[in-house]
Amino acid sequence: MLRSIGRQWRCSVAFQCPCLSPARQQLPLAPSSEGRAMSTSVGQQLKAQQQQQLQEQQQQQQQQMHKIDEEVSRLLALKAKLGGDAAPANQKFTLKTPKGTRDYAPQQMTLRQGVLDKIVQVFKRHGGEAIDTPVFELKEVLTGKYGEDSKLIYDLKDQGGEILSMRYDLTVPLARYLAMNKISSIKRYHIAKVYRRDNPAMTRGRYREFYQCDFDIAGTYDPMLADAECVKIVAEVLDTLDIGDYVIKLNHRQLLDGMFEACGVPPNNFRAICSAVDKLDKSPWAEVRKEMVEEKGLDGATADRIGEYVRLSGGAELVEQLLADPKLKAVPNAVKGLEGMQLLLKYCSLFGLEQRVSFDLSLARGLDYYTGVIYEGVLKAEPGSTGSPVKTLQNGDQAPEQGGTVGSVAGGGRYDNLVGMFDPRGKAVPCVGVSIGVERIFSVLEAKFAASKVKLRTNDVEVYVASAHKGLHEQRLRVLNQLWDAGIKAEHSYKVNPKLLVQLQHCEEHQIPLAIVLGDAELAQGIVKLREVRTRQESNVTLAELPAEIRRRLQE
Amino acid sequence: MLRSIGRQWRCSVAFQCPCLSPARQQLPLAPSSEGRAMSTSVGQQLKAQQQQQLQEQQQQQQQQMHKIDEEVSRLLALKAKLGGDAAPANQKFTLKTPKGTRDYAPQQMTLRQGVLDKIVQVFKRHGGEAIDTPVFELKEVLTGKYGEDSKLIYDLKDQGGEILSMRYDLTVPLARYLAMNKISSIKRYHIAKVYRRDNPAMTRGRYREFYQCDFDIAGTYDPMLADAECVKIVAEVLDTLDIGDYVIKLNHRQLLDGMFEACGVPPNNFRAICSAVDKLDKSPWAEVRKEMVEEKGLDGATADRIGEYVRLSGGAELVEQLLADPKLKAVPNAVKGLEGMQLLLKYCSLFGLEQRVSFDLSLARGLDYYTGVIYEGVLKAEPGSTGSPVKTLQNGDQAPEQGGTVGSVAGGGRYDNLVGMFDPRGKAVPCVGVSIGVERIFSVLEAKFAASKVKLRTNDVEVYVASAHKGLHEQRLRVLNQLWDAGIKAEHSYKVNPKLLVQLQHCEEHQIPLAIVLGDAELAQGIVKLREVRTRQESNVTLAELPAEIRRRLQE
Repeated sequence: MLRSIGRQWRCSVAFQCPCLSPARQQLPLAPSSEGRAMSTSVGQQLKAQQQQQLQEQQQQQQQQMHKIDEEVSRLLALKAKLGGDAAPANQKFTLKTPKGTRDYAPQQMTLRQGVLDKIVQVFKRHGGEAIDTPVFELKEVLTGKYGEDSKLIYDLKDQGGEILSMRYDLTVPLARYLAMNKISSIKRYHIAKVYRRDNPAMTRGRYREFYQCDFDIAGTYDPMLADAECVKIVAEVLDTLDIGDYVIKLNHRQLLDGMFEACGVPPNNFRAICSAVDKLDKSPWAEVRKEMVEEKGLDGATADRIGEYVRLSGGAELVEQLLADPKLKAVPNAVKGLEGMQLLLKYCSLFGLEQRVSFDLSLARGLDYYTGVIYEGVLKAEPGSTGSPVKTLQNGDQAPEQGGTVGSVAGGGRYDNLVGMFDPRGKAVPCVGVSIGVERIFSVLEAKFAASKVKLRTNDVEVYVASAHKGLHEQRLRVLNQLWDAGIKAEHSYKVNPKLLVQLQHCEEHQIPLAIVLGDAELAQGIVKLREVRTRQESNVTLAELPAEIRRRLQE
Repeated sequence: MLRSIGRQWRCSVAFQCPCLSPARQQLPLAPSSEGRAMSTSVGQQLKAQQQQQLQEQQQQQQQQMHKIDEEVSRLLALKAKLGGDAAPANQKFTLKTPKGTRDYAPQQMTLRQGVLDKIVQVFKRHGGEAIDTPVFELKEVLTGKYGEDSKLIYDLKDQGGEILSMRYDLTVPLARYLAMNKISSIKRYHIAKVYRRDNPAMTRGRYREFYQCDFDIAGTYDPMLADAECVKIVAEVLDTLDIGDYVIKLNHRQLLDGMFEACGVPPNNFRAICSAVDKLDKSPWAEVRKEMVEEKGLDGATADRIGEYVRLSGGAELVEQLLADPKLKAVPNAVKGLEGMQLLLKYCSLFGLEQRVSFDLSLARGLDYYTGVIYEGVLKAEPGSTGSPVKTLQNGDQAPEQGGTVGSVAGGGRYDNLVGMFDPRGKAVPCVGVSIGVERIFSVLEAKFAASKVKLRTNDVEVYVASAHKGLHEQRLRVLNQLWDAGIKAEHSYKVNPKLLVQLQHCEEHQIPLAIVLGDAELAQGIVKLREVRTRQESNVTLAELPAEIRRRLQE
């Protein structure tokens, strides 16, 4: 059996192997640069030939890729046959959630729902409308949007039909939604889970499945008005969640590019150097410089010039200073970026954020798609705290931080070209947005809560209906029905004859404010005992008045 | 370049191919069944040898699977290198959501949120606590839980690491959660999306990605108390959503099994015949009978006996009648099922549901895991309506219905053995639950709404801050900041100098109740104009009193 599978596999590989195909032996080489020196007519002829060759090459590449796909399916099918996929009945396996994910128990859900509700309140205060998109997208929607991080995308198995991937963030689905529906302006929020095949440190609030809370403003507007409102939203969210002191770092991609130009970075190296700068929040300058010089081939003097700039941070006075800087003054991108920062800082100050924002030249953010303002909300270290050092990077990613206990809990920026990548005619819809990294916030609050030892109520039951003695379960159902129909949150024991003590203990353990105790003697007079669980005080109430009396007590 | 990759690939495959490895040549054959005829001692010796051979075989299988894994990664890496994963810049492809999925635009989200909020209210009224689980599970968690429907499960691609599948419902993840955390009692609700690779009719509210709203009661309790409460919850949800008249069909798996036994169905054919009966809500008896006889090998007389029973429906009097039925009386399962129904109907009547429930012997429900009561909430045809005939099957699935416009919008039942399938010692946690098919409800409400031509507000903005003339944008930001800080929902134009008419039109189109109009003359006196958008009445308010005055107006 095994032997024959082995043989079959061997054969199929040999059959598929493209290097054995005669067509492959004649594959043209890529056109050489020598052609440039030839005469025009010969050059044109050659160009045509080269184009044809290129086309053939592409076709053959595609055929080859198709063959690889077939081979992969065959191998995976073989693996399944060998027993990799099918679990025999009653097979014991480790009961767990997938790597990097977790369940939310009722206590955690209560906390989470509280945080999300507060965030939604802020989003609505700024006129946000909600949208939702599927949890997966056509794979090609995500392709080419995340640079190096694309390897972290979860793909779905090819089960026939479309090739799908799990969403990696909520920004690319928004861009797809806007282009697909030809929407040129919207203020939308979207709260949903996103998926990254990372190697997360879950103890630090970092997961493979995690929530993002995004607010974005799409539309062609005057400079910095929408951008400043996004910064304001970050401040309002962090204020309302009350998780400690914070700063919102601001920078501008155009200024970064201008600064790189002024320092002598070759333009095709801008994004690579930018992503090196992005590491400054978790690595010291010496390491970042090393990456720039050794990995990204920058010369040392250029790196040192960058090093001078990225250590700068401040407010409006820093913008003035840089606008006067001879190197930057000569670069139009740098000047435009600085003028943008000037306007943004002015609007932020009108929004009362002067003490909250910091213009910080080391802020770079990882994602390729930003084109203008970028910002990041960072929790400051609590005075004297020695808690776990955590740092959230863009969109909820976190990495260890040396020194203080700071954490990035929000980030975003302007991305004017992303929607255009989806539009058949390349029509751009300028966008600016913010993403709140709630997992980190949940972690902080969960830790706070665990330390406080307060027991959070996980249900909202207002009244427990109890039996004082046996034989009253049908009466309980009648009373419950009356309460439910009046909109009162009520429960009882699912035992026919529960012990009174057990019932009253349940009320105290679950912090249910009121209990009704049924007894034959009282019922004969049409009354029941209403008990305040905390004080254990009881009083008689008629069945007819019960809902109204309960409501009165709950309002007290 | 291509050629060298080709060669490299060829080599690596040849190198890995297990059929070339010398060890493989000596692989023992699987033990043959001939051994059984031999003498005991020889037999035992042979058995030991066979076991050793089996172990070696398994080890080699595992090694082989590991090699396949490596080979697959290598092939996939090669494919990526060939450009299979990277879409060329500006590649045109159809902009769409994956098959069977949809975006929710703000209008739809508003409707959806309204429905979900009402459902949560009902769940909380019955003491429900929320939990959440990951959108995917280890594949083996789902394996063997859904019978024939397993083919509809979405698998994730094997990208190295664990093998994952998207959740198919919220019931199996709940069972995994209870077993994993050794929870023996909970009343939990879970509202989340589930995934089925079906061929859905989306116009009928049927999708591959759809919401389920589940409420389940887990724990060892006295008969039918929790079951009846789930039926009550279905009634409360359908009442509060106000989507038309409905009936809740009730039946019992034990009674169905007993009835099959009484009719002469062989026990190993119970589940197959049960799933044939399940089709009675969308197919006439003649077709179901044909399936039983021709596909499932039942004899015609047996099928006819079943046919007599499944056309019965009624109330407590039908239970009495069947308890007196000589064929059923002789079968313990049938009697137990009928006694259960008797108790359930009594409790339902105490909950005021006598006119809402119908004991219906044709109700079977598709899923294998039910062990007791089953129920289904079905919308009745509106008098005189000829609307689209839709029928929701279990857990949100819908199929076309001949005749009336009825639709199943909720379903559930008791499943006492599912948690035990996950517990290492098989410890059972009895459960009963209900799932609300909200997609069908959204469809009904969306259609109603489209017909009514009422425009739903999709944001909650209370005040629009407008400029009467040029040069006032900084003043707008100051006023907005004052309002936001006071918790008032406010927005403005993101243009520096918008036209007054455009701003006021925006207010009317978006049904914003109030507008503030800023003008230099008023601002000089510390006042602004407050305008009621609907009536267009304006009055002067001082800036200091603005938040309080706005709140007063909104409360009116």
